[in-house]
Amino acid sequence: MTTKAWGAHSARELLGPLDISRREPGPHDVQIDIDWCGVCHSDLHTVRSEWSGTRYPCIPGHEIIGRVTAVGGAVTGFAVGDTVGVGCMVDSCQSCSACEEGLEQYCENGFSGTYNSPVSDAPGHTLGGYSKRIVVDEKFILRISHPAGQLAAAAPLLCAGITTWSPLRHWGVGPGKKVGIAGVGGLGHMGIRLAKALGAEVVAFTTSENKREDARALGADEVVVSRNPEEMKAYRSSFDLILDTVSASHNLDDFVSLLKRDGTLALVGVPEHPHPSPNVGQIVFSRRAIAGSLIGGIRETQEMLDFCAEHGIVSDVEVIPIQQINEAYERMLRSDVRYRFVIDLSSLEG
Amino acid sequence: MTTKAWGAHSARELLGPLDISRREPGPHDVQIDIDWCGVCHSDLHTVRSEWSGTRYPCIPGHEIIGRVTAVGGAVTGFAVGDTVGVGCMVDSCQSCSACEEGLEQYCENGFSGTYNSPVSDAPGHTLGGYSKRIVVDEKFILRISHPAGQLAAAAPLLCAGITTWSPLRHWGVGPGKKVGIAGVGGLGHMGIRLAKALGAEVVAFTTSENKREDARALGADEVVVSRNPEEMKAYRSSFDLILDTVSASHNLDDFVSLLKRDGTLALVGVPEHPHPSPNVGQIVFSRRAIAGSLIGGIRETQEMLDFCAEHGIVSDVEVIPIQQINEAYERMLRSDVRYRFVIDLSSLEG
Repeated sequence: MTTKAWGAHSARELLGPLDISRREPGPHDVQIDIDWCGVCHSDLHTVRSEWSGTRYPCIPGHEIIGRVTAVGGAVTGFAVGDTVGVGCMVDSCQSCSACEEGLEQYCENGFSGTYNSPVSDAPGHTLGGYSKRIVVDEKFILRISHPAGQLAAAAPLLCAGITTWSPLRHWGVGPGKKVGIAGVGGLGHMGIRLAKALGAEVVAFTTSENKREDARALGADEVVVSRNPEEMKAYRSSFDLILDTVSASHNLDDFVSLLKRDGTLALVGVPEHPHPSPNVGQIVFSRRAIAGSLIGGIRETQEMLDFCAEHGIVSDVEVIPIQQINEAYERMLRSDVRYRFVIDLSSLEG
Repeated sequence: MTTKAWGAHSARELLGPLDISRREPGPHDVQIDIDWCGVCHSDLHTVRSEWSGTRYPCIPGHEIIGRVTAVGGAVTGFAVGDTVGVGCMVDSCQSCSACEEGLEQYCENGFSGTYNSPVSDAPGHTLGGYSKRIVVDEKFILRISHPAGQLAAAAPLLCAGITTWSPLRHWGVGPGKKVGIAGVGGLGHMGIRLAKALGAEVVAFTTSENKREDARALGADEVVVSRNPEEMKAYRSSFDLILDTVSASHNLDDFVSLLKRDGTLALVGVPEHPHPSPNVGQIVFSRRAIAGSLIGGIRETQEMLDFCAEHGIVSDVEVIPIQQINEAYERMLRSDVRYRFVIDLSSLEG
């Protein structure tokens, strides 16, 4: 099946229209016509091969929402017409202990990403959601219950949403817990909304004075400009968890010092250049931890989507036609988006 | 009460004999005649002011075992003639949440160390166990049930023992768990014994080929020379916990990569120079953590001492007279001790 898409043939090229092929649905496959696809920083890093190892042609996109247009004979969970989503993963071994626990993101044999992972389909690697259609095993399909008018804004839940939800749940965020969210961007703005909806006391940390009001509007009980040492000092030893969504290199000690005894700084971003080496004394003297978390499993992604539909939670998005993707990347690099671009794939028809 | 001791008047001086004064026992105090005192690296760092802030005269020593020779009128738990111990702490606020949980080492108002902490007694700071006598509030006295012949070897349990026991227990080490102990020294050799006695599978990591047999004799199921990348690689993603007792600056990534998903690298040493900044990808991609742990609370110290008495666990020690303390420090710096010096305080009489 030839499918229209946007992507690049090399790291030095702007994204442009491409024709790709999708497999015919096998017995366990679901074929989706894509309506919306969120734009993640990982898309940009991958298409520009900034993490090395990009396979070309590269079609990014792993925050996918669309409608089921065909199902394989063995598919039981989905039917033509269903509104569904696909996130960062399209396959995993299904037999290791991580997969058995529903934590496919930690698959010991390596999960297959929605783009740039080896696969037997042409051209030999997976191709993402900047396209009209995708075919995915039903085990990696999510059910979307948001109303039609919220679907564009729900797309970023598939990566930004689950990446913040999973650590919030893993470290037991809820009523009675005090949670910090460092960084008010694509991930951070979801972290604030989700932590608040889970019942925690939420403090947002931003380097930008001009995001103070935004962070409050998103639901933060308090907002701290992290460049201001006096403001930071007032929060010493007070957090159960700080979810650090900042992927640029920064001083982790500033946040570690704000954790209670036994508190955790959970990193979800991998910096291009190392963070300064953290102060070990601060960790030892209060039994604190610096930990990490990667997206989330399929089961917990479905839980998060259902929770968000029930609570009316979506991302703040700016919808663009695919023809504006290169400009959107430049704006994303300048943090000039509140807070996520979402591609309207109907623009691909033109 | 004038009491004989050994210590130093300045950072540049060798240790030598000093007369100090101890308070008369108050209502809640226990007076102890000291028989044995272990020699900890912290003693050396403090007396040489390598951590800055040393108050002089400095009398080190916080692995103390002796006999009760007087008790205050309100003391209920101890009687003259009891064999008791004092570890790293002699006081804490007793009212913060850490103290209420029996975790005085994390006292939010700062615990009083056995030496070098401000106190109202002369000379204005606490003086440690390199002395004939000490007076301590009964809340900080430990009961020692080891037989008389094991008391010298039991002294290091008060610091080296509890510093390894507390993280092993906190992170749930027991049957079915695979635990690494990095560093086979004063702390590490206790970590191996305790983890093994708790029922875990224990792998020791050492940089010294010549400690391989020692570590096995201490109870390690396997021993890895951590300078050998091939040997290390065989253990990738296999540990629930690695207890890192190495306080010299070293590459943490070598150990983080050996943790299972959700595994923890628990640091108990604070390096003088920072470790290389840890690789964040290794943390994020397997939800691993780098955490820290500080000595242990009084309640868990008593549990550890009782466990050790029941299981016949002590340290490997070399007993010295106090007159050899300066030479012992030099040997400790060369790791030329298996594995702990213990001072026989009867030597102070001469």
